[in-house]
Amino acid sequence: MKLYGFWRSLATYRVRIALRLKGVPFDEISVDLLAGEQLNSDYDAVNPQHVVPTLIDGETRLFQSMAILEWLDETHPEPPLLPRQANERAYARALALVTIADTHPLTVPRVRKHLAEALSLDNAGVEAWGAHFIAEGLKTYEKLFEQRPPAPYALGSQVTVADLAVAGHAAGAGYFHVNVKDYQRFAALLDTLMALPEFADSHPLRQPGAPKAA
Amino acid sequence: MKLYGFWRSLATYRVRIALRLKGVPFDEISVDLLAGEQLNSDYDAVNPQHVVPTLIDGETRLFQSMAILEWLDETHPEPPLLPRQANERAYARALALVTIADTHPLTVPRVRKHLAEALSLDNAGVEAWGAHFIAEGLKTYEKLFEQRPPAPYALGSQVTVADLAVAGHAAGAGYFHVNVKDYQRFAALLDTLMALPEFADSHPLRQPGAPKAA
Repeated sequence: MKLYGFWRSLATYRVRIALRLKGVPFDEISVDLLAGEQLNSDYDAVNPQHVVPTLIDGETRLFQSMAILEWLDETHPEPPLLPRQANERAYARALALVTIADTHPLTVPRVRKHLAEALSLDNAGVEAWGAHFIAEGLKTYEKLFEQRPPAPYALGSQVTVADLAVAGHAAGAGYFHVNVKDYQRFAALLDTLMALPEFADSHPLRQPGAPKAA
Repeated sequence: MKLYGFWRSLATYRVRIALRLKGVPFDEISVDLLAGEQLNSDYDAVNPQHVVPTLIDGETRLFQSMAILEWLDETHPEPPLLPRQANERAYARALALVTIADTHPLTVPRVRKHLAEALSLDNAGVEAWGAHFIAEGLKTYEKLFEQRPPAPYALGSQVTVADLAVAGHAAGAGYFHVNVKDYQRFAALLDTLMALPEFADSHPLRQPGAPKAA
């Protein structure tokens, strides 16, 4: 498969982990979001929304990371990224969406650009914006993990989409200098996840093009 | 079932449509987001993220609208809200996520509050912010619908989660005074959807508590 992505993209990170967990070989094509390459006309043909990732499987063009994760789980069932039981599947998805829907989209390049250009926010202002919403997400995760502690993964013995999303949220915290250690259960889960090579090798800062430090 | 929601909430709107399409009876409990009721300690016990909707089915507490829609489709399969074939399911979900992940979370009360309080934006500024991202979503939908015209629904003959999301996006356009008529294919799909009683009766402006005009 072909994955249009970018080293820094948290949505690409989630998909990269899933592909590795499923053992699906892929080639990643970099679309430099910081240089605005997602707005080029040749990428418009790939993804009219001008975002990454886009996953290409033959003639099939898949976009939106959550839709890609669900598709991968349906077409490559082993190992599953969702539990079997409906209530558990819903909880795994809801945990994932705390960041995929309610946090990460607030911090992406097109939003940071709008904050800087339309609202004249300086770099410190943009960083404070991102840090605020990342911290809100961390507070939510911490409360949910207090109610139901990870054991050892978010849903229990099986890695699910919730864990992929947590790893992405943590990488986002790094970008905006939010210390995840202030959120004990979240931080402990993150340590567990980052011990898995599929998570560690997929991390934004380990990709070609990434700077040596965040 | 019990649905904690709010007349104005687009995420509640999506779930309301799904419950009606599935023929699942429900009582809606209003959490007044504009008055900050979502931050009350009794709602914190229901939804630690302090957002609506939350769907209660016996002992099961479900949150995040996309996770609720998937759960409803798994536990109440008829009529299905997703196609059968994996590529089509992915396309339906991706269309839904254009607004559920990439637009709607940018316009919710907690973000508008942050724009007003932390960034000192006045009402006009907050409205311009919302209108910008709603219009971005409409542009994406219009391009996708040019590539694959709705016939008559987004995915074809069957109503899917994509249609629920489109209806929510359109209601959001109303809040921010963005004219959907400028997006022809989107507007035509919306007309088709609003002719269905499950969509029309679930519309925010038809709920108890809604003002007479938007």
